[in-house]
Amino acid sequence: MFKERYHDYLEMVEQYLNHLPLDRNILARSMNYSLVGGGKRIRPVLALACAELVGGRPEELVSEAAAIELIHTYSLIHDDLPAMDDDDYRRGKLSNHKVFGEAGAILAGDALLTLAFELLAGPSAIEAQNKLRVIRETAQAAGWQGMVGGQSLDTLGNLENSTLADIEQVHHLKTGALLKASARLGAILGGGSEPEIEILTSYALYLGLAFQIKDDILDVVGESAVIGKSAGKDQRSGKPTYPSLLGLEGAREQLEKTIFLAKESLSCFGPKAAFLLSLADYTAERTN
Amino acid sequence: MFKERYHDYLEMVEQYLNHLPLDRNILARSMNYSLVGGGKRIRPVLALACAELVGGRPEELVSEAAAIELIHTYSLIHDDLPAMDDDDYRRGKLSNHKVFGEAGAILAGDALLTLAFELLAGPSAIEAQNKLRVIRETAQAAGWQGMVGGQSLDTLGNLENSTLADIEQVHHLKTGALLKASARLGAILGGGSEPEIEILTSYALYLGLAFQIKDDILDVVGESAVIGKSAGKDQRSGKPTYPSLLGLEGAREQLEKTIFLAKESLSCFGPKAAFLLSLADYTAERTN
Repeated sequence: MFKERYHDYLEMVEQYLNHLPLDRNILARSMNYSLVGGGKRIRPVLALACAELVGGRPEELVSEAAAIELIHTYSLIHDDLPAMDDDDYRRGKLSNHKVFGEAGAILAGDALLTLAFELLAGPSAIEAQNKLRVIRETAQAAGWQGMVGGQSLDTLGNLENSTLADIEQVHHLKTGALLKASARLGAILGGGSEPEIEILTSYALYLGLAFQIKDDILDVVGESAVIGKSAGKDQRSGKPTYPSLLGLEGAREQLEKTIFLAKESLSCFGPKAAFLLSLADYTAERTN
Repeated sequence: MFKERYHDYLEMVEQYLNHLPLDRNILARSMNYSLVGGGKRIRPVLALACAELVGGRPEELVSEAAAIELIHTYSLIHDDLPAMDDDDYRRGKLSNHKVFGEAGAILAGDALLTLAFELLAGPSAIEAQNKLRVIRETAQAAGWQGMVGGQSLDTLGNLENSTLADIEQVHHLKTGALLKASARLGAILGGGSEPEIEILTSYALYLGLAFQIKDDILDVVGESAVIGKSAGKDQRSGKPTYPSLLGLEGAREQLEKTIFLAKESLSCFGPKAAFLLSLADYTAERTN
């Protein structure tokens, strides 16, 4: 049931991403290389599921949900650059700059970020004020007070002697902010009430935290071939992680607690929330 | 008269840019370094002037006009990177990556682009549908089919043996598209009619072309200290320019012709267009 529904949502997003009317020039090929054929698409899937949960029709906001995936993809391309995290692999294949060069990767990222806002502002049946609100919130979540701010702390900050609170702040900005924006995008464009929007925000924040704890655990126990990027990278970087601060068992307990809180925040939705409840479990159980 | 009005518009933009509520962290300082204290601000000035010409109140769209300057600034930061044009100076001071490093420059650019869309979607008295249209058009102008597309052709393309038509295409994308978007932003948010919007689009395209021809001429005859970036760079790069293709005299004639067409396109506005007429002359006469 969960798997089927995930597949349905995923199909909507993949269909859309695979048919973006991009040219065949080098820039478009670089954009496409990173955008298609990979990734769990958890952000757009979360957006579509939240929209449906509050009574919206997911088919009506596929382009807006896909826009979040474009923002996520641009951030991966730029993060992998030699001047940043300097990573050669991503989603199980060579990272963008290893194929298209640094200039090609910088420009593809810039273009994907810009295209995301073109899609968010695209023609649709949804009320214009709601669309403007979503653009404003998404930009905030992705920008200097959100995702880019987190990447800046991570890359330019001195995190070697950080506490758990410092690390959670970085994760909240780097990962949590955009997941939260995805849930809110779905809830707002789906026509949710303010309390519904707030509940889904809370759920998404716990989900983001769980996602990050699991990522840290996979970095310790996973294999590069399965997780699709270099394993053991966190340890080599010397930055604290959940396992390094809490021990592997402690990190697993923290993960379980976070998943519990994510699921508990949905209680007032009753059985309607089945998909999001399973999504929380999936986040903890995934192997990549 | 022209100078005073330019100063008025400029003041609105500078006041706004100088008081953006950015933190004092490293990312915000990098954003601010490139954003404040420099530049002719021709794009936001053009936007405000177009808004006023069609009967709008420029005070009401300062944040949206300033957003275009953020997009322009981000593009300069990324263009100056070692992997791109590798330029050490910009607007008469060290380029961003020479001060904040490559990661700091990449992230500041990303954050400025994202903040631009937050400002474009910001709360305002302007009709939501018009704001969405402006966001859509601005993203289009700045993205893979516009400015980033032009930078890609310029950086990744093979322009050594290009014709004048090829070069004009690159300029149109790199510079013209965002100038056009600035004029349209002003005209749309100022409440202009569709014919007014089209006329100002045409004016902005000629203005952008004139701007580029003048830049090429200044690269030959200007001094680095005055133009604020490295003179003679075009010649060293081996890429064709207006002077290299048409000769210096030919380029000057082309500039004059283009200014004439820009001004002629405004004829139906009568004396109301005085500022934009002078702006066209200013573009041709400037020394930096």
